[in-house]
Amino acid sequence: MSLKEEALKMHKDNQGKLMVKTKVAVNDEHDLSLAYSPGVAEPCLEIEREPDKIYEYTNKANFVAVVSDGSAVLGLGDIGAAASMPVMEGKAVLFKEFGGVDAFPICLDESDPDKLIEIVKKMESVWGGINLEDIKAPKCFYIEDRLKEELNIPVFHDDQHGTAIITIAGLINSLKIVDKKIEDIKVVVNGAGAAGVSIIDLLLAEGVKDIVALDSKGAIYEGRDNLNESKKELAKITNKNNQAGDLAEIMKGTDVFIGVSIANLVSKDMVRSMNADPIIFAMANPVPEIMPDDAFAAGAKIVGTGRSDFPNQVNNVLAFPGIFRGALDVRAREINREMKQAAAYALADLIAEDELKADYVIPKPFDPRVGPHVAAAVAQAAIDTNAARIKLTYEEELANAKKIMEKK
Amino acid sequence: MSLKEEALKMHKDNQGKLMVKTKVAVNDEHDLSLAYSPGVAEPCLEIEREPDKIYEYTNKANFVAVVSDGSAVLGLGDIGAAASMPVMEGKAVLFKEFGGVDAFPICLDESDPDKLIEIVKKMESVWGGINLEDIKAPKCFYIEDRLKEELNIPVFHDDQHGTAIITIAGLINSLKIVDKKIEDIKVVVNGAGAAGVSIIDLLLAEGVKDIVALDSKGAIYEGRDNLNESKKELAKITNKNNQAGDLAEIMKGTDVFIGVSIANLVSKDMVRSMNADPIIFAMANPVPEIMPDDAFAAGAKIVGTGRSDFPNQVNNVLAFPGIFRGALDVRAREINREMKQAAAYALADLIAEDELKADYVIPKPFDPRVGPHVAAAVAQAAIDTNAARIKLTYEEELANAKKIMEKK
Repeated sequence: MSLKEEALKMHKDNQGKLMVKTKVAVNDEHDLSLAYSPGVAEPCLEIEREPDKIYEYTNKANFVAVVSDGSAVLGLGDIGAAASMPVMEGKAVLFKEFGGVDAFPICLDESDPDKLIEIVKKMESVWGGINLEDIKAPKCFYIEDRLKEELNIPVFHDDQHGTAIITIAGLINSLKIVDKKIEDIKVVVNGAGAAGVSIIDLLLAEGVKDIVALDSKGAIYEGRDNLNESKKELAKITNKNNQAGDLAEIMKGTDVFIGVSIANLVSKDMVRSMNADPIIFAMANPVPEIMPDDAFAAGAKIVGTGRSDFPNQVNNVLAFPGIFRGALDVRAREINREMKQAAAYALADLIAEDELKADYVIPKPFDPRVGPHVAAAVAQAAIDTNAARIKLTYEEELANAKKIMEKK
Repeated sequence: MSLKEEALKMHKDNQGKLMVKTKVAVNDEHDLSLAYSPGVAEPCLEIEREPDKIYEYTNKANFVAVVSDGSAVLGLGDIGAAASMPVMEGKAVLFKEFGGVDAFPICLDESDPDKLIEIVKKMESVWGGINLEDIKAPKCFYIEDRLKEELNIPVFHDDQHGTAIITIAGLINSLKIVDKKIEDIKVVVNGAGAAGVSIIDLLLAEGVKDIVALDSKGAIYEGRDNLNESKKELAKITNKNNQAGDLAEIMKGTDVFIGVSIANLVSKDMVRSMNADPIIFAMANPVPEIMPDDAFAAGAKIVGTGRSDFPNQVNNVLAFPGIFRGALDVRAREINREMKQAAAYALADLIAEDELKADYVIPKPFDPRVGPHVAAAVAQAAIDTNAARIKLTYEEELANAKKIMEKK
């Protein structure tokens, strides 16, 4: 049976991948009077008096909505809300399995970003956090920005920040191997969509000074035609020499190629034109911008992709489950840049100096240390930036996250 | 510890009552490639090609939203979306425990009925059915009517129909005991809110010819002041003699009192003024319109209340879990009147002729036969009224519902 057939069979045999389960038994009248009428009136009244008690008396503290309009699903494009359900259920499965988070698919048949924002706002009571998923650029930026501003719970567009955080983790470790300083490197980011924008944001925060971003029309520079608002903003904060040109021209003399674009755009010659010890993160899915073998043949030192069949997989399960775990556990109001950076360093630091090598700069998705360590680092960063409403020590959150994930 | 303290402790110890669980394991790369990328693309594409496949490849077929704006929560009134969360989680617990349905609380901070309708419509992809809960009258009628019309999945406002269905079941059995025919009885319905309106609808459907409804201002008749749209409609279809008067006057010479109003409105003298063998359903919560002991002292033959500490409890768990179970299992497009009537007869028929007595006209909430029998009857009624998209025999659905509930 092919993977496709096996995936269809698995989904059909189980009729989906999620269920709802109760945390309390209802075996007799007394149980019923506690879980429902009349006992349930008490927590309601407590919450009415003191709204924050909703975190104590309901599962809000661990509920996350996986919100999508189905406009940019995997590599499938705009397939709509209904057809995106298997992906959003799948995302919820990963939240639970890798982070102990009770996530639920909220697929919205709403293409207007303002209306989608209103719907999510009206549901805020239910959720401890909002994970935006597979919403196309540039509207994903607007939706995330406004929800971050208007909600009092963390909002995180995983397609942007998940990929970015893991790429930064891989880059931090790669630079140790090639012995270059982050402030000295020249970086090309090919792809200026959801992930590209967030990668650039984190690269700048880490101190990278020389970045050129490209879209399908070439380098993005101030004054170029065909720039939407988010690309105009990119033109301002990157490409300090206002370089024009196609990917082949731009890659010459650079140290790092980061691809969040499409298959087979990078040739061996383009890798050969880079500086010594090129670092390549070719994350187009399922076929990367250049296959690892070709990249190595052309002199690449380190190669990461989105694929599980090659080393250094940039797999989002490394980030979002632990990030939400940590954010939820300290009741963070947001997931800010410092929390994302903390997640990147937590991932990078999981690989000890003596284990670090070219084919192991990113931890493996099934490494059980990942979730709790990311959670603990993110929780501390939330506390340090005054984004947390609960204070825990690093060790407390590490133990807490481990316990929750064992129970899941 | 008092019940109040115990209820608070239970909610706090468990941090709410619900969780999300996965139906598939994710233990290695292969599992991941089936549940998420790249395998998950296949069911997405199948659903895009053939929208009904969403019922096969996702849990939609068993997901029900418990939707509330928190405007009429239990006896607590308009406490808002957030404070209603414990009730909606509780409702979801009952859905699972009594019907094997994966229900999820959707508390919406939206007081405008048109906007609430829009939100629910945009979420339709996710759900196999919508249970409206604790939305105040008369807007609950408008919201349910429009959603029934505009959605292709069952919509059911339990506060209206749940109570109505069980009351009708109790009435059917009571009439056997007092040996009166349903077309001959005179019925008083005190309370013209959500439940009262649905009770009257089912009484009429069952052939009751003489009904007078009252609100807090007395009998509802055509031409009376202070009638909203739903009460104007009631005035047209009830009170054929256009009687005016207060409850004491209206109750004289009637056979059945149905109360969905407030405590202690009915005196012994009022019961004494009724016809022989009065039937009383006094469902105000927690204190009924008349306490059973007083009603019996005044000559009542049969008394039902909303309370678990008296016989003949009108408890909604007798109806909604099985109704949704049956509706979901045949992929019903709606829950129509015939399906509600079928549920009432299924409940009534669970009490065999030789078991039937004045203190046992309604089955007990924890009777394990209830859910599957209601489900099977509702499924058949859906098929008979062309509301079903899947055909099953009564025996098939009975076995199916039993199996699902055992697994829950």
